Amino acid sequence: MKRFMGKNFLLDTDTARELYHDIAADLPVYDFHCHIPAQQLAENEPFASIAQVWLSGDHYKWRAMRVAGVPEAMITGNASDEEKFMAWAETVPKLIGNPLYHWTHLELQRYFDIDEPLSPKSAAEIWNECNRQIISMRPRDLIARSNVKLLCTTDDPVDSLEWHQRLRAAGETEILPTFRPDRAMNLDAPTFAAWLLQLENAVGFAINDFDTFKRALTLRLEFFHANGCRLSDHALDTVPAAAPSDDLAQEAFTAFRRGETILSHLVDAYRSSLLVFLAAEYSRVHWTMQLHIGAFRDLNTPMFEALGPNTGFDAIADTPIARPLASLLSAMGEAAPLPRTLLFSLNDKDNYTLGTLMGTLQRDGVPAHVGVGPAWWFHDHRSGMEKHLRSLANVAPLSEFIGMTTDSRSLLSYARHEYFRRIFCNVLGAWVENGEYPEDYRSLEMIVRKVCFENAMSLFPTA
Amino acid sequence: MKRFMGKNFLLDTDTARELYHDIAADLPVYDFHCHIPAQQLAENEPFASIAQVWLSGDHYKWRAMRVAGVPEAMITGNASDEEKFMAWAETVPKLIGNPLYHWTHLELQRYFDIDEPLSPKSAAEIWNECNRQIISMRPRDLIARSNVKLLCTTDDPVDSLEWHQRLRAAGETEILPTFRPDRAMNLDAPTFAAWLLQLENAVGFAINDFDTFKRALTLRLEFFHANGCRLSDHALDTVPAAAPSDDLAQEAFTAFRRGETILSHLVDAYRSSLLVFLAAEYSRVHWTMQLHIGAFRDLNTPMFEALGPNTGFDAIADTPIARPLASLLSAMGEAAPLPRTLLFSLNDKDNYTLGTLMGTLQRDGVPAHVGVGPAWWFHDHRSGMEKHLRSLANVAPLSEFIGMTTDSRSLLSYARHEYFRRIFCNVLGAWVENGEYPEDYRSLEMIVRKVCFENAMSLFPTA
Amino acid sequence: MKRFMGKNFLLDTDTARELYHDIAADLPVYDFHCHIPAQQLAENEPFASIAQVWLSGDHYKWRAMRVAGVPEAMITGNASDEEKFMAWAETVPKLIGNPLYHWTHLELQRYFDIDEPLSPKSAAEIWNECNRQIISMRPRDLIARSNVKLLCTTDDPVDSLEWHQRLRAAGETEILPTFRPDRAMNLDAPTFAAWLLQLENAVGFAINDFDTFKRALTLRLEFFHANGCRLSDHALDTVPAAAPSDDLAQEAFTAFRRGETILSHLVDAYRSSLLVFLAAEYSRVHWTMQLHIGAFRDLNTPMFEALGPNTGFDAIADTPIARPLASLLSAMGEAAPLPRTLLFSLNDKDNYTLGTLMGTLQRDGVPAHVGVGPAWWFHDHRSGMEKHLRSLANVAPLSEFIGMTTDSRSLLSYARHEYFRRIFCNVLGAWVENGEYPEDYRSLEMIVRKVCFENAMSLFPTA
Repeated sequence: MKRFMGKNFLLDTDTARELYHDIAADLPVYDFHCHIPAQQLAENEPFASIAQVWLSGDHYKWRAMRVAGVPEAMITGNASDEEKFMAWAETVPKLIGNPLYHWTHLELQRYFDIDEPLSPKSAAEIWNECNRQIISMRPRDLIARSNVKLLCTTDDPVDSLEWHQRLRAAGETEILPTFRPDRAMNLDAPTFAAWLLQLENAVGFAINDFDTFKRALTLRLEFFHANGCRLSDHALDTVPAAAPSDDLAQEAFTAFRRGETILSHLVDAYRSSLLVFLAAEYSRVHWTMQLHIGAFRDLNTPMFEALGPNTGFDAIADTPIARPLASLLSAMGEAAPLPRTLLFSLNDKDNYTLGTLMGTLQRDGVPAHVGVGPAWWFHDHRSGMEKHLRSLANVAPLSEFIGMTTDSRSLLSYARHEYFRRIFCNVLGAWVENGEYPEDYRSLEMIVRKVCFENAMSLFPTA
Repeated sequence: MKRFMGKNFLLDTDTARELYHDIAADLPVYDFHCHIPAQQLAENEPFASIAQVWLSGDHYKWRAMRVAGVPEAMITGNASDEEKFMAWAETVPKLIGNPLYHWTHLELQRYFDIDEPLSPKSAAEIWNECNRQIISMRPRDLIARSNVKLLCTTDDPVDSLEWHQRLRAAGETEILPTFRPDRAMNLDAPTFAAWLLQLENAVGFAINDFDTFKRALTLRLEFFHANGCRLSDHALDTVPAAAPSDDLAQEAFTAFRRGETILSHLVDAYRSSLLVFLAAEYSRVHWTMQLHIGAFRDLNTPMFEALGPNTGFDAIADTPIARPLASLLSAMGEAAPLPRTLLFSLNDKDNYTLGTLMGTLQRDGVPAHVGVGPAWWFHDHRSGMEKHLRSLANVAPLSEFIGMTTDSRSLLSYARHEYFRRIFCNVLGAWVENGEYPEDYRSLEMIVRKVCFENAMSLFPTA
Repeated sequence: MKRFMGKNFLLDTDTARELYHDIAADLPVYDFHCHIPAQQLAENEPFASIAQVWLSGDHYKWRAMRVAGVPEAMITGNASDEEKFMAWAETVPKLIGNPLYHWTHLELQRYFDIDEPLSPKSAAEIWNECNRQIISMRPRDLIARSNVKLLCTTDDPVDSLEWHQRLRAAGETEILPTFRPDRAMNLDAPTFAAWLLQLENAVGFAINDFDTFKRALTLRLEFFHANGCRLSDHALDTVPAAAPSDDLAQEAFTAFRRGETILSHLVDAYRSSLLVFLAAEYSRVHWTMQLHIGAFRDLNTPMFEALGPNTGFDAIADTPIARPLASLLSAMGEAAPLPRTLLFSLNDKDNYTLGTLMGTLQRDGVPAHVGVGPAWWFHDHRSGMEKHLRSLANVAPLSEFIGMTTDSRSLLSYARHEYFRRIFCNVLGAWVENGEYPEDYRSLEMIVRKVCFENAMSLFPTA
């Protein structure tokens, strides 16, 4: 019986323990993809309560509470912070085997020095103790305390980046924006017109055709670049299957401007064309392109209307991706050298497909020019990560893996890097102790350092 | 070396052993989905031989024997019971790692007190000993001995439920029918006309349009309700992709009545419409709706013609389901509050898709209003259940899981509840002993009780 | 801590060790599917260097080196053998958890008696020692030393089989051709015309319609049969979805002959028809048909143009296969008795689909008339094999599994049989020691012998 989430949590062998404690634990964090708002970091206000950090935006927790039968009023409704915290505490013991269970207690241990499991019994005491401490925790202190050396937010091309500029002015150069033009892709969304107006305002000219639209995006991309951005990100819920065609894209844009219904094959061609165009742009400015594939979003219409997106109503899509994705990447590579690319899928059936596909698209002499991202969202847990690491190791040199990112809205989520590193060292340790890899600590240290932060650091050549 | 299927079979840790022996082992069974004929329970006749129980209808065993090269005559043909038993005994040692191996021996141990592994060597003795005992085993004794508190059969809407009525008259209130209108869905099947006639006879009026058809189904549903039914079940081999449309459904029905070929998009719309209608009906009477998705049935035409359905010629489909299923459930939820729902897929690639999709469809304040069913059919074994439990735990509170059901035609299959409970306790025990969950036996007991029977019991609010 | 790849590599229990060392280790090898050129075996020339064996054709290694950032010049370019070997040695330590890591060291141990792990540090010494030894290793010595009793090459129907005839003349009867008519399938490929000319030359008559084409293939099939061939093989990257139709096939052939674009539904029908025809032919001459499904090939156009096929630019497809494959096999079975068949998929999501589908297609009284092939290509490693074995065991008698094949271009790859056998015995041993199967060594030996070579031997009824 191991102690509950003790010093050697998830570390089952001596080798795993050595690799984690002696090497991985103290390495810096390059968090290349998260959803923390730059404004929160710039304003740097302390938190009102632990419920604010934990429950004001974390749709993982909301979803779990809903399945456990907690009334919505206690989740996103008018209940008080304390009531919400108590509803969460009641849910926690039901989450056996769930990463929320581990994250919750890693965060209690690391940020609040609380070892007690959260349950209805311990809830009142933990509520008081966390709140006592949290009023003195400011966002940037948490970042520093988490050994975060670089952090990339997620931003719309029309964003003014004013909070990033303030952060830079305050000397915080390690907080960089990411260019995420999802709204540019969704020509057929009801919100496109309003967003396009924002884009016109941002660039200062009218946009009435596809070429001008692309020119506007280039201007924003260059603005982002000047503000330190080195990555883009796309939520490719479905990979467009159409061949890129600027003619069809223009046709789609014209239909939009005329207020006509846009035929779905035109939207698809528009998306392909825009992605091929942007990939060439990313390549030109040496950015890395991230493709997040396979989320199926906002599946509960009444709740979407009440709460908006990212509120816990998404699921895992299961559409085949190999053929359209290979075609899209191939079209990108014909138009310009493929930018450095990270492929994510929300469906773990795609682990091997992505792991083999990326192997066909390397740039001569460059390690992992195309690679896969970490186990994502619904797979960000022990069995998901282990499966992901093993599938990747089976088809590629694991040393080149980009490693962990939080992908989170919460500043306490840096505990997930510890979680990943323990799991990663444990997988390595098992191979060594099982006689599948020699006790070659120099190579093992090389692999641990690369995967835990060096490979991620390499995404920022000028940082 | 653990003893072969000994007291601690599948229980690898002290915690697992405690949870199983002290809590799970003696909990009652709520078998909410099985295929035992009500007639067999009502007539309550003893068995002629162990071959009658084991080999007269179990297509899992038939399939295994066919792959092992046993001639069909010894499987479903004219061979004697003893010859068939001997052919089975010859197959058993080849089934290493197969759940049939475990079920066979659990059944020998629990119902016949035989610890000897079945093999050609032991076959004659086991044949004699089982037959000596089985003549005194009546179906309802086996049910009682298995600690079954409630059992749901699977029944066609046209069924007279006479055997259920006799059982009720005999004081056996815990054997309830389930409404399974698969034949209502299959408007394009050659058997639809004959079935429709049965439905007309059951309701006492002619059915010439879709509205009347729905009215007839409602009458049958109410008849089932009056006879204790609280669940429906659908074999959704393919999830219909069409939007529901009563107009198109009527068109399909008209084409059927005219004896015309029914275009496939009409059949699809007919199915969607009927499912949406039935979901609303289930919701109105507070039934639970079960959707069994992804079986690909009767793939061997000559054998289907010789033996009919459910004879071992089915396979696992692999069509994407996320989009059509989400659309279907969404359409149901727009028409009426979604009934309590259990989602099953025969393809374990869907575990995470269903586990996340169900999380988007909860009813405010109700635990697991939409949930997933147990690992089904070809996944009803150790690795299938473990994978299923882990994937579910990773995305939801495992405490709300509906737990086990036999889905079987055999009265000895109640051993599968023991099988599930051992595996379940073992998964929990590993988490505790690995420091991933505290030694909080109160919470663990709560989880074990809920998953082993309380959650299933909650399907029967008036039972 | 187990010794690095020591005597009990991958053998975790006493039972596994007994099964492997006492039974499996010394069993002969029936390598029913590989890509070793018959010419290399007939010429029997020694190797120039270890780089020639390891790096001249192994696209698994090339792919790994590319992801690791090795310049193409050091992979397939003009660099010297020694430079290429050094680049490989630099890549090896990065391949933790990858089967290449294990294969490399099994090959060093078994063929060169070298226990030292390959790394930049040990590279020079290993380079010298291997080269010292390899000049005295001739291909057929390696075959004999690997205990290979039968080996099937992979050959185009137009092949003259002259090297096979020379081998047979030299008394090497155990090296047999395999009939692989992939180029016959690809009517729409730019290379079809040139290949058809070769076929015309081989049969000595012009081929202007589909019937004549089929007749020509029959002649080649009979020529192959006379030269010892007993297996066919198809790379079914996509399973054709069209129903077979000789009329449409003829239409497709006509379009080809006229130099017109062939509509894709015609190509699909052509493929279905040809496969149904060939299956009947295989059945007639009692061959086994192998279907290799789901590779997505040559995804990097510039590299394909530079290096050709089989150079490391393939990935795993993810198209659903259950429906088209079941339809195709059903159409084959209607036209003639289905030949003995082995189903492979490159996507491990298909393990259960194939394992259940094959169970529906057995021939009365014949063991595993339709079966699944071993874990293939990107799954030919510990976790891939374990997953494959467990999924198969869960739905079928594992004793009937066809077992291992190298599928390799390299003569040193026979170490993969040892790799498979260790993993197989380890899986069996775990079941026994965990109390899931009795200590019945007679049955265990039966299973080990059948899976390690007897089942494969049965593919060659006249051998």
